[in-house]
Amino acid sequence: MEIRKIGIILNGVTGRMGTNQHLIRSIKAIIDQGGIRIGDDLVLMPDPILTGRNENKLRALAERTGITNVSTDLAAALADPRYPIFFDASLTLLRAGFVERAVKAGKAIYCEKPTAVKTADAVALAKLCEDAGLKNGVVQDKLWLPGLRKFRMIHEQGFFGDILSVRGEFGYWVFTGHHYDQPAQRPSWNYRDEDGGGIIIDMLCHWRYVIDHCFGKVTGVSCLGATHIPERIDENGQPYACTADDSAYATFQCENGVVCHFNSSWNTRVRRDDLLTMQVDGTKGSALVGLRKCWVQSSAGTPRPVWNPDIDQPIDFFGGWQEVPDHQVYDNAFKIQWEQFIRHVALDEPFPYSLMEGAKGVQLAEAGITSWKERRWVDLEPLR
Amino acid sequence: MEIRKIGIILNGVTGRMGTNQHLIRSIKAIIDQGGIRIGDDLVLMPDPILTGRNENKLRALAERTGITNVSTDLAAALADPRYPIFFDASLTLLRAGFVERAVKAGKAIYCEKPTAVKTADAVALAKLCEDAGLKNGVVQDKLWLPGLRKFRMIHEQGFFGDILSVRGEFGYWVFTGHHYDQPAQRPSWNYRDEDGGGIIIDMLCHWRYVIDHCFGKVTGVSCLGATHIPERIDENGQPYACTADDSAYATFQCENGVVCHFNSSWNTRVRRDDLLTMQVDGTKGSALVGLRKCWVQSSAGTPRPVWNPDIDQPIDFFGGWQEVPDHQVYDNAFKIQWEQFIRHVALDEPFPYSLMEGAKGVQLAEAGITSWKERRWVDLEPLR
Amino acid sequence: MEIRKIGIILNGVTGRMGTNQHLIRSIKAIIDQGGIRIGDDLVLMPDPILTGRNENKLRALAERTGITNVSTDLAAALADPRYPIFFDASLTLLRAGFVERAVKAGKAIYCEKPTAVKTADAVALAKLCEDAGLKNGVVQDKLWLPGLRKFRMIHEQGFFGDILSVRGEFGYWVFTGHHYDQPAQRPSWNYRDEDGGGIIIDMLCHWRYVIDHCFGKVTGVSCLGATHIPERIDENGQPYACTADDSAYATFQCENGVVCHFNSSWNTRVRRDDLLTMQVDGTKGSALVGLRKCWVQSSAGTPRPVWNPDIDQPIDFFGGWQEVPDHQVYDNAFKIQWEQFIRHVALDEPFPYSLMEGAKGVQLAEAGITSWKERRWVDLEPLR
Amino acid sequence: MEIRKIGIILNGVTGRMGTNQHLIRSIKAIIDQGGIRIGDDLVLMPDPILTGRNENKLRALAERTGITNVSTDLAAALADPRYPIFFDASLTLLRAGFVERAVKAGKAIYCEKPTAVKTADAVALAKLCEDAGLKNGVVQDKLWLPGLRKFRMIHEQGFFGDILSVRGEFGYWVFTGHHYDQPAQRPSWNYRDEDGGGIIIDMLCHWRYVIDHCFGKVTGVSCLGATHIPERIDENGQPYACTADDSAYATFQCENGVVCHFNSSWNTRVRRDDLLTMQVDGTKGSALVGLRKCWVQSSAGTPRPVWNPDIDQPIDFFGGWQEVPDHQVYDNAFKIQWEQFIRHVALDEPFPYSLMEGAKGVQLAEAGITSWKERRWVDLEPLR
Repeated sequence: MEIRKIGIILNGVTGRMGTNQHLIRSIKAIIDQGGIRIGDDLVLMPDPILTGRNENKLRALAERTGITNVSTDLAAALADPRYPIFFDASLTLLRAGFVERAVKAGKAIYCEKPTAVKTADAVALAKLCEDAGLKNGVVQDKLWLPGLRKFRMIHEQGFFGDILSVRGEFGYWVFTGHHYDQPAQRPSWNYRDEDGGGIIIDMLCHWRYVIDHCFGKVTGVSCLGATHIPERIDENGQPYACTADDSAYATFQCENGVVCHFNSSWNTRVRRDDLLTMQVDGTKGSALVGLRKCWVQSSAGTPRPVWNPDIDQPIDFFGGWQEVPDHQVYDNAFKIQWEQFIRHVALDEPFPYSLMEGAKGVQLAEAGITSWKERRWVDLEPLR
Repeated sequence: MEIRKIGIILNGVTGRMGTNQHLIRSIKAIIDQGGIRIGDDLVLMPDPILTGRNENKLRALAERTGITNVSTDLAAALADPRYPIFFDASLTLLRAGFVERAVKAGKAIYCEKPTAVKTADAVALAKLCEDAGLKNGVVQDKLWLPGLRKFRMIHEQGFFGDILSVRGEFGYWVFTGHHYDQPAQRPSWNYRDEDGGGIIIDMLCHWRYVIDHCFGKVTGVSCLGATHIPERIDENGQPYACTADDSAYATFQCENGVVCHFNSSWNTRVRRDDLLTMQVDGTKGSALVGLRKCWVQSSAGTPRPVWNPDIDQPIDFFGGWQEVPDHQVYDNAFKIQWEQFIRHVALDEPFPYSLMEGAKGVQLAEAGITSWKERRWVDLEPLR
Repeated sequence: MEIRKIGIILNGVTGRMGTNQHLIRSIKAIIDQGGIRIGDDLVLMPDPILTGRNENKLRALAERTGITNVSTDLAAALADPRYPIFFDASLTLLRAGFVERAVKAGKAIYCEKPTAVKTADAVALAKLCEDAGLKNGVVQDKLWLPGLRKFRMIHEQGFFGDILSVRGEFGYWVFTGHHYDQPAQRPSWNYRDEDGGGIIIDMLCHWRYVIDHCFGKVTGVSCLGATHIPERIDENGQPYACTADDSAYATFQCENGVVCHFNSSWNTRVRRDDLLTMQVDGTKGSALVGLRKCWVQSSAGTPRPVWNPDIDQPIDFFGGWQEVPDHQVYDNAFKIQWEQFIRHVALDEPFPYSLMEGAKGVQLAEAGITSWKERRWVDLEPLR
Repeated sequence: MEIRKIGIILNGVTGRMGTNQHLIRSIKAIIDQGGIRIGDDLVLMPDPILTGRNENKLRALAERTGITNVSTDLAAALADPRYPIFFDASLTLLRAGFVERAVKAGKAIYCEKPTAVKTADAVALAKLCEDAGLKNGVVQDKLWLPGLRKFRMIHEQGFFGDILSVRGEFGYWVFTGHHYDQPAQRPSWNYRDEDGGGIIIDMLCHWRYVIDHCFGKVTGVSCLGATHIPERIDENGQPYACTADDSAYATFQCENGVVCHFNSSWNTRVRRDDLLTMQVDGTKGSALVGLRKCWVQSSAGTPRPVWNPDIDQPIDFFGGWQEVPDHQVYDNAFKIQWEQFIRHVALDEPFPYSLMEGAKGVQLAEAGITSWKERRWVDLEPLR
């Protein structure tokens, strides 16, 4: 049995997502499970180094996770041939700089989304990798959420007939921090445009690959952003002006005629099945897709409601749906994609979630902002 | 005790809504309860005559309801001074003609919505009444749905703080009629543009007065219509081409900054609390408003969700809401508005739901269609 | 990073409360978490010495907790400048003597409540500290119970409108010890007046600061004490006469008109949400405040009950309340106050819970006893 | 089988309580069940006449109930020997005048409580009947509430050992009427002192006979009244000043040492088992007594709680109680007492609920008001 080490530079994973999803639940979890087993003869074993600017943070993270190989000297790590993969989870506005250095060092590139806040930059980054002949990829974790996997399972079986429309709702109430013992639960930069914040740039990147893969290729967007809460309290207890959109009301058209109506908000109290829900209506059946669960109603089970507000609604509109059962223990979505990328690098297996695909997400976000500013639909051109 | 008869011409109430809501649950119910009692000394008692073109239908309706005063001679009824009120529930495209005759006869005018399919026509009809100095009104029944009354009750008490946004969902699955024993449950003209059909013209009239009265004055709309189902089966079992929109994806802006995101569809399977739900999010609390019920979550009860798709969602997102209790036996919404209109005519009490208000609904629907066709936001100008 | 040791004399913490709450869950827990972190550069690290009369008990405690620095020579500890803080959790009747010695030694004084059983003594002790210019404080742990913090969170947001009244219920069944295998679960001195026992002196100290901080400044009290159980079994299995009150029925008036009706009893079986519950009724909403949880009913959710004893009550009077969610992992209440006192001593941060504030609690307890004996309301004069 | 008619003058039963409880659920129900059957040979059949000042109201009531014998001529009814019983449910302030006339006419007297608002007047009324040798009684319906009957059932079996204390809570939220669609649900005179309103005079009359019969003879009271809501909206939509107490915080002492702590409020939101609950704690067991249900916890089932606010309370304090089962279909409480009074008049069976007993209720209420005004305990002297 060959155990092949795959060196991975993890840059900027001291943030919440980087630490929890990429380091602990992906790379460390892969190590803890004994690596990625390939047939009977080979194991791919991640060999990570954590890079960043703040040594104290890196040391604390090393202590917490047991991944003790840390360095503030990114240049040295990039120069080290033991590390063929460079992963970046730093701030969006710093991403391009790091990736460019890694490309020069000939690394395979993997990074968090959004890869940029401008489509041109995202495309340039993708082309940089392509021109250098480097393997590359971008995180599209939501494709492996158990709820979406269940959707794809039943969709592939023809459950929906023709899909007609999708209604997406994402978000929850993010506390403003103004009140005693109700601190904000998201970082303040999310609400500042000048720091790359805003829900459109954050979420429309996701909606692009989710829709493209699941429902139909997106061709156009109408989007209204809003900053409903003008002031919040920051990490130091100081009020600050919110300059970025905290809610996005978007409609997407797909080339197959499907319409997707998506609501994304950090100012909504949740009365639905999950933090993200997508209701998919098709000619033969409908589904409500959540993060982990999926409920369906087929044509056979569709009730015939009567509009009569003089009596309480006699139909239980939740009872008439059926939960799609689990068919396995669903692994962490980030980890699944990490395993695919490592196999892509090590074994040349296909990996369709390239930086150019990631650029499409940035394109949709930018088109959404244009739509908001110019108060019109914006069509998406093919990239390049 | 004086019992004063109020003669009312009910024109075109042989349709489903006209018969059920206006004749049986409103006028007949008022008669059955002993009229409208005004203080200790006066009762206003409706004295209806049913007019229409089809004598057989009228006779059948008379037999069914016990309202035996019927006529196909509308001219005679209009000429009869015993009938000061003319009500029209005929097809939209016929409305103007009937109203014009009633105006000439000096009647007080009350009618169903939409009053026209073009704003200019709706405004002209309103001005016709105003210029003739005639009292007039349009049906805006949803304002008296118990769920909306509960909303207004708590809104008036400051429950919401500042309202930020409203997410409306309306509709249900209308069967196409293609399948054995699953007949369509709505008339075919609803799906034909040439017959005045379409969900935009039907529903945006409602959303206008609901939003104007409850959330903020509407100033602009972005709307995408769709005809998701191209063919349905008509009342005679024949297939027909659907030429009207069967779904509308709309966003409304209000002058106070509130954003309303409304979905209206006849092609959706219902997984929500009611056939119409509006989630209202405010700084201090949120409500889910249904036809008869209303659920609330105040700031005090707002949970702090954590995004962790590796485990099932630990928060019950429905359990954290509280139902607003009933505070009375809620009367039929149409009947309440009928009583107000009769008091308006007989006693000069205020009645703000004029034909000009109704024209605003037509304006919003027409703007919605323009937005759809021109793929842009359409601002609403003040009428006249 | 500077780690500054803060020497603390913990006197008389061999009792249940002293050991569990002050030593283990506060001081030791602070040490175990790495001290109190102040910004990026400073850590305040408690350095405790346990003092008492019984060396064996001290050694046993040291072994159990790992805090091995113990001494029966209080005078030496007081003379040692490494210990700027003196904390006393000895019996109430011994408190003054210990504190006077610590004041002479120039220590910052922190102690358990009640600081005395007579107001004059409590005030004298407070003035002794003030005149000596020493920082001082008294335990008021209930202010940091998670349930009360949730109350303050929603109160600050205006949830209640005007608070009208508070109904407090405290207590549970303390077994008398007469029966096989049902031993008493509280020490016998609690039930002997001559040993400083009695529920009035024990609990009204708490109610003073809870009401003062949360509901309104207390101005008067009417209190009835009772010794419902005349005989109990002591720690040695011997019967003894109960000479102290085991139940207190009190009403408090506040300067803002709020009325607090509090029941405290060791002879009641619990049928309520928690061992201590306070129902707060306000014009806009009500809350039921427990030790860790808090349930609310807003005006929007207030039902309209009908008095009809001929049928079972159709309203679920518990269902119509909503639990206030957790917004953090709530730290131990004693520990939170300890951290504040240590910061007060080391960094001059404000600490409003002084010995004079503690004397107010004694004042209320003494007024309660006077009210009981003289069968009348007793008004509270400003102290000093 | 003899059917003996018992003529009963029902005076002033057009109010809510008079109509529902006395006329419909008592007298009419007795008639409908075929009278009161006495052994095998006799039936006592009520033969009511409804008297009052407003003929229209009487006629409407006759129509509604089928009791068609009505009259505005009380003098004639009193002069009619067919009516040996006079019942009065008029306003409290009118009661004495009516009773005096009926006494002169030699009727057996039965009336609603309170019989007066002053003890002297209530005693005088009782002595008037006694001196005239007339049978007399006062409504004390709560004694026959199913919940209280269950309490008496288990109490008589020795369930409680020695009763130590009782904690009573009565009331609910009475809407002020200020808000849209939330009208007040009690008459405005209840909140006006000048009209005989106030919760002390209303409820302490009840608490007197409930405590006297169930727990111990009341010997003293400390009571604090409050008018928490200063303004409400009356039946005509007009604001009015509330001059009567809307909440009462009372403590009662009994000659057997039992302490009763009772809260009565129209400004409290209900989070308890019923609109009226009394928790009775005894040495051997406790009960929670509601209107219809009763839950118990015996010594055997009493848990041993631990005070540890660092964890959620592990004991389910509601689960450890057991509901006392129904032992029969419980008849309406008013009807039961009516049957007893009719048997008392017709058959000389004992009836301990005399006007002098009723005067004790007035005495407690008046003492409660004195206690409030003079801020002291008030002892109850034996009447007469």
